[in-house]
Amino acid sequence: MANIRFYNARILTMEDQNIIEGELWVSGSKITYIGEGKANDIKWDSQIDCNRNILMPGLKNAHTHSGMTFSRSLADEYSLNDWLFKAIFPREAKLTPEHIYWFTKLAYAEYLSGGITACFDMYFHLREAAKAAVESGIRLVFCDSANDFGGIDELEDNYNTYNSFDPLVSFKLGFHAEYTTSKKNMEYVSQLAHKYKAPVYTHISETRAEVEGCKDRYGVTPAVLLDRMGIFDFGGGGFHCVWFTDEDMEVFRSKGLWSVFNACSNLKLASGIAPVYKFIDSDMKIAIGTDGAGSNNSLSLIREMYLDTVLSNSMTGNAATVDPYKILKAGTTGGALCMGLDDSDVLAEGKKADIIMIDMSRPSMQPENNIIRNIVYSADNSCIKMTMADGKILYEDGKFTSVDIEEVYRMCNRLQKDLV
Amino acid sequence: MANIRFYNARILTMEDQNIIEGELWVSGSKITYIGEGKANDIKWDSQIDCNRNILMPGLKNAHTHSGMTFSRSLADEYSLNDWLFKAIFPREAKLTPEHIYWFTKLAYAEYLSGGITACFDMYFHLREAAKAAVESGIRLVFCDSANDFGGIDELEDNYNTYNSFDPLVSFKLGFHAEYTTSKKNMEYVSQLAHKYKAPVYTHISETRAEVEGCKDRYGVTPAVLLDRMGIFDFGGGGFHCVWFTDEDMEVFRSKGLWSVFNACSNLKLASGIAPVYKFIDSDMKIAIGTDGAGSNNSLSLIREMYLDTVLSNSMTGNAATVDPYKILKAGTTGGALCMGLDDSDVLAEGKKADIIMIDMSRPSMQPENNIIRNIVYSADNSCIKMTMADGKILYEDGKFTSVDIEEVYRMCNRLQKDLV
Repeated sequence: MANIRFYNARILTMEDQNIIEGELWVSGSKITYIGEGKANDIKWDSQIDCNRNILMPGLKNAHTHSGMTFSRSLADEYSLNDWLFKAIFPREAKLTPEHIYWFTKLAYAEYLSGGITACFDMYFHLREAAKAAVESGIRLVFCDSANDFGGIDELEDNYNTYNSFDPLVSFKLGFHAEYTTSKKNMEYVSQLAHKYKAPVYTHISETRAEVEGCKDRYGVTPAVLLDRMGIFDFGGGGFHCVWFTDEDMEVFRSKGLWSVFNACSNLKLASGIAPVYKFIDSDMKIAIGTDGAGSNNSLSLIREMYLDTVLSNSMTGNAATVDPYKILKAGTTGGALCMGLDDSDVLAEGKKADIIMIDMSRPSMQPENNIIRNIVYSADNSCIKMTMADGKILYEDGKFTSVDIEEVYRMCNRLQKDLV
Repeated sequence: MANIRFYNARILTMEDQNIIEGELWVSGSKITYIGEGKANDIKWDSQIDCNRNILMPGLKNAHTHSGMTFSRSLADEYSLNDWLFKAIFPREAKLTPEHIYWFTKLAYAEYLSGGITACFDMYFHLREAAKAAVESGIRLVFCDSANDFGGIDELEDNYNTYNSFDPLVSFKLGFHAEYTTSKKNMEYVSQLAHKYKAPVYTHISETRAEVEGCKDRYGVTPAVLLDRMGIFDFGGGGFHCVWFTDEDMEVFRSKGLWSVFNACSNLKLASGIAPVYKFIDSDMKIAIGTDGAGSNNSLSLIREMYLDTVLSNSMTGNAATVDPYKILKAGTTGGALCMGLDDSDVLAEGKKADIIMIDMSRPSMQPENNIIRNIVYSADNSCIKMTMADGKILYEDGKFTSVDIEEVYRMCNRLQKDLV
């Protein structure tokens, strides 16, 4: 059990906006101390001078399809429906477990290089993704993507298997979306939610056409439909939430459901812009995800946070629309709680050591008028100096400690050729 | 005169979309060879294995106010008018030459770290900015910001002084904007344009209120007004171009004027979104800038290029609206030609060695389905492995060769205290 001492640090715990000057100690997978430092007789395995850089909770990618890195820059000329049916589904049919293993590893490396310590991952061939996560050291929460084309029969098994697979891995009930899942199959998901008293997550109101289709089929919007079916009786949430009505927002607010935004994907696929400021104004639970690499195309949560602030400004015509701190909170604490990672939400004694270091010696982080604003408005992945998950340093100064990155690139480019 | 050989490179010249595998040679400030390599008896000062990373022209920041890094994250709660009059102008009144020198140096370091090799810089205390540029090694083109509050009397002197100051520095006629400059002063700018047969640049149609104000004052939009005054008789262009009418676009198209977009600043200040796709569809001359750090807040041209593609998608509802290559062209070649840097527009023998290396071993640059799309959609400053301007390597693997960056940070944070 390694003991690591970070000293000469500025610590943004995200319990509030204060910055603590001093030390953060890690023992094994947990944070054991945050403060100005004190006498101790701990045998340190590593003592790290932070040079007054910022320590803060790892970013949480609360919606992604990691294995989709195969599709990055591959089919950028389609809107969502054509993109799915013409470009993605035919290629996904060719994906083998080997493809998933390597393309997922690529995504996980990108997360680590971007300060993301946990992801809420919705894809298939779960065993290979779980293996990639455990080897990479990143925290993985599966969200099932069951739908009429597959996954319903394995949903309960997966729930039990991947909730006792590895300390880094957990699993949440989910299904792809109303428009790909029959009422019978959604009713089954609802039964499982009640059996396990478990939350359920799904794509929801991503495009206007999806909402209109649901109204044609059921007479109500997806959020109202799923709520009436009891799917959300034990919590959960939805991804995208671009075309939410006031009634949808009230369903999510009153049930305490999570709204997860994916601004880059929605912009690129021309799906619309989620009115993030309305969710904040209504005190709703919000988190942020990158979506998959095919529709983003980067997997940068920092870019998502930036866009969630400025797009809201643009929608309202008011430059003060969204408080950047609330967005940083959504990208860290919100994401953790959304995925059920209650021990990874903030930096505090007893919490998991899922920590990143922001490099304040990048020009875009200076001067230090307001560090939180600098992070949300001006940072990018070049400002991520270190990423630690579960007490292990996985990325530092541009190098990966747990991933043979050149091998990942070699394999991904080789396997890519099978998918053309 | 140093001779530098880049080998094992992939070279995106930006003359077209092809990528050349091989070598690029630099002698002094110029590119002397691009090709697969050949026998030679050159005494190389440096031979650099590019490891198949991409060499391409440096990005060109075609509109910025570099000295404004003092205002980063300082007053994020204002719309453009209040931001200018309540937050910025009172602080600018306190800026000394020393402030400008250090805050400009900070901006120039940020450009280099983001692959920007030239900037079109509109601010004051030109001598200190020019000194900062020459010391940093970056290519600087001044655009004058004369207006009713100052600068008109010095405009002609500045034109002559900074067009013969240093090979890295040049100067273009300009004024701040119609709404800050009297007709008499604009007429004087027009006279200078005719005297020197020189192009003129200015802020134009950034906000709806600016356009309405101009119509109240003169009965026409800013572009039409300035055109009728003869200001654009020898070319030039405008910054922002958010609220252009069809007539404005026709003025700019028919005169071959440059439209320079600043998406991040416009979003953050809630000024609107320029319909970039319309300018491309009309075959207009376009370039891209970051605007100042107070309203962006980063100075990343990569982020600007990304937004120019996806915001157009979002405006039209069509994911194929803008070809990323045309945006990359605007961010490199377009910017250079806009600023009069005809020798820095593409990589070719005889052109200036203003070159960047894209790090293809960042996860976001893989797999290599389409390298141009990867750059525009997925890159950030962490993908800039090297920046060379005028034949000198100024930034490499996160380190600055021409700037004492810790001293810059120390001075900026100290001088910042004068401005509160």
